[in-house]
Amino acid sequence: MELQTARGVRDFPPEEKIAREEVVNKLKQMFEIYGFSPMETPILERIETLSAKYAGGAEILKETFKLKDQGGRDLGLRYDPTVPLARFIGMNPNLKMPFKRYELGPVFRDGPIKLGRYRQFWQCDVDTIGVTSMLAEAEVLSLAARFFESLGLSATIKINNRQLLNGLIEEAKVTDKADDAILSLDKLEKIGEKGVSEELKQKGFLEKEVKSLLELIRVKELKKLKNLKNSLIERGIKELEELFSYLNLWNVPYSFEPSLARGLSYYTGTVYEVFVKELPSAVAAGGRYDTMIGNFLGSDKKYPAVGISFGLDTILDVLKLRNKGEKKKRSVTEIFVLPIGTLTKSMILANELREGRINTEIDLLSRGISKNMDYANTQGIPYVLFVGEDELKKKKFKLKDMATGKEEFLSIKEVISKLRPKTE
Amino acid sequence: MELQTARGVRDFPPEEKIAREEVVNKLKQMFEIYGFSPMETPILERIETLSAKYAGGAEILKETFKLKDQGGRDLGLRYDPTVPLARFIGMNPNLKMPFKRYELGPVFRDGPIKLGRYRQFWQCDVDTIGVTSMLAEAEVLSLAARFFESLGLSATIKINNRQLLNGLIEEAKVTDKADDAILSLDKLEKIGEKGVSEELKQKGFLEKEVKSLLELIRVKELKKLKNLKNSLIERGIKELEELFSYLNLWNVPYSFEPSLARGLSYYTGTVYEVFVKELPSAVAAGGRYDTMIGNFLGSDKKYPAVGISFGLDTILDVLKLRNKGEKKKRSVTEIFVLPIGTLTKSMILANELREGRINTEIDLLSRGISKNMDYANTQGIPYVLFVGEDELKKKKFKLKDMATGKEEFLSIKEVISKLRPKTE
Repeated sequence: MELQTARGVRDFPPEEKIAREEVVNKLKQMFEIYGFSPMETPILERIETLSAKYAGGAEILKETFKLKDQGGRDLGLRYDPTVPLARFIGMNPNLKMPFKRYELGPVFRDGPIKLGRYRQFWQCDVDTIGVTSMLAEAEVLSLAARFFESLGLSATIKINNRQLLNGLIEEAKVTDKADDAILSLDKLEKIGEKGVSEELKQKGFLEKEVKSLLELIRVKELKKLKNLKNSLIERGIKELEELFSYLNLWNVPYSFEPSLARGLSYYTGTVYEVFVKELPSAVAAGGRYDTMIGNFLGSDKKYPAVGISFGLDTILDVLKLRNKGEKKKRSVTEIFVLPIGTLTKSMILANELREGRINTEIDLLSRGISKNMDYANTQGIPYVLFVGEDELKKKKFKLKDMATGKEEFLSIKEVISKLRPKTE
Repeated sequence: MELQTARGVRDFPPEEKIAREEVVNKLKQMFEIYGFSPMETPILERIETLSAKYAGGAEILKETFKLKDQGGRDLGLRYDPTVPLARFIGMNPNLKMPFKRYELGPVFRDGPIKLGRYRQFWQCDVDTIGVTSMLAEAEVLSLAARFFESLGLSATIKINNRQLLNGLIEEAKVTDKADDAILSLDKLEKIGEKGVSEELKQKGFLEKEVKSLLELIRVKELKKLKNLKNSLIERGIKELEELFSYLNLWNVPYSFEPSLARGLSYYTGTVYEVFVKELPSAVAAGGRYDTMIGNFLGSDKKYPAVGISFGLDTILDVLKLRNKGEKKKRSVTEIFVLPIGTLTKSMILANELREGRINTEIDLLSRGISKNMDYANTQGIPYVLFVGEDELKKKKFKLKDMATGKEEFLSIKEVISKLRPKTE
């Protein structure tokens, strides 16, 4: 048998998973501080759900892993947490609004394998359902800003409004080619004005249409756009002004980016992307999708919705770049108990440390001192406790700090208070 | 479109997921206290891996969800975390021993739907690879005992040794029918001696074979079994005595149960099951499987291994039974900020609470007092903070304890120190 993982999926050994868990735990904590509660939807969904008209769209469906159960029922692996959320909301008509939930977990796409693209990856989504006020956007953006701050990353948030963008397209008189315009304008940051201009011309846009579009998009101040008497633009500006006032109140840094669209996705109002200086691709993104859930459910009922999705892999790439050269943590163990012919007594001490909630390992292989030290060192365990007969008599044990080499003689109680993580 | 989940899978809305997360977090914390580090293997595996001779066996393979990727490669959804672990160990020959890891996450079985059986469910596994000493067993059993204690459940651990059991079967002279004997004896707790006796006779065991087997199995004291001169029994007793001495040292409660086998699984030595009085089925179980990984890898190298698996669904069932009648937590929110015509100022206060790491919601729908109170009440949010003009002037805000109805006037700082969870 050839030993390998399936194509496009990964093992996360402890040294990777520990770093992932740190980020995931920070995300969860921040989600909860903002009053979002956890929820879990299944990885298996009925193919009817995943392929519903207003779900992910044809392109995503093409990349959906499909399978059958033993009863011959058609199933698929979820490609995002949003479609299951929409189904859940439809199945639970008595849900109290606003419904604020987060979901973290694996999603699947059977697409081509490229650098940084995987067939199983984690998506970390937080959504507010039932709120038309821009407070919903303000909350998830404040949350995002504070989360990246907690990682020591300085994030910038680019914000636009799809109604405003549609209004600008209307002003440039290219509404009949809106999708083409949106897809090209969305690339402005990546390929620059010249690139966008060329692409639009290739798509058959007239010289004056391109000029008009680019001129409108170039205006980065809301008040200058106010002169345009266009109801879409007016509505977009009103929403953005409300949102910006909230963001200013909460000291959330942002910039207005009128070309931002987030593709041809289901967004209906605000759209945003979060960037850090270390990477060109967004580390989080989302927006308002007021019609998607209702359309998905084929319901007349309105389900205004706002969400943001954090890219766990991208965030970890950024942290890896930043922490380059630092030793990876291979273990959560804080202390290694090294018995020197004192196994039974050492076991009692290890038990005391564990009762004190210190992450503790003890030699399980009756190895000698140097082999145990080598193990503790490779694993990156920060402290080793030496337990010899002499130490047992004195009830003071040699604690070695593996990073500095410093040694002290401490009682078990003293070791616990030294290592117990301080409350932040 | 009919709105439903796939057959045999479940949504966990916040009121379920919050309870699940509490248990999962306690498990993780306990795993780490014992020096196990987290790891994650993929949900998708190559079918060759899942169907390898020494993997799950024919019965499990029959229940494996199978699918193909776009390249036509045969894949399956993992049915347990052990086979991916074995593959991982084979792919990482330089792994430092002992390798102590835990993995929590969904596994899949396309089996018949019965009460309490699902097609997607969580398995929480912790394993030590590379240790022949009974210290490995002692650690996971101490961990299990302490975990259930932390949930306020009193657990009993039943322990046996497969070598001892095989020795008893040898003594009863039914080695040629060992598998049949094991499967029936394993049911002793469930169907009693009479049931086992009848089942064995139906399987063609002679009267005297049954009598001999049951007599041997009835001996619940190791020292009484020492008279039997049988090398399998001797080895089993030696291991159990070593293990029991460690468990006594660590005050782990256990009982010796010579009929326990854990089915025809790959266990080679110690086997154990953990029970709580609230349920007849085991809440955790595992054992030593010294040959499985080596056999799976087709390797001459030895990979002694010890593991225990916690049944998240079963544990939650027990807690549900115990907490019957208690109100479920529908939200992680600790405080609801209720603006009375003071949105902007209330937003600033909400921000201060969030900076103080208090899980905070604020009215997003500009609702009146009674609707907001109704929302906070249904969600089970413990505190509501009223922000009126008067309160803003005095900088003291009315904090209502929703459980007791008690009201106090506090500054935001005082609210934060009141609500910030105390360190344990």
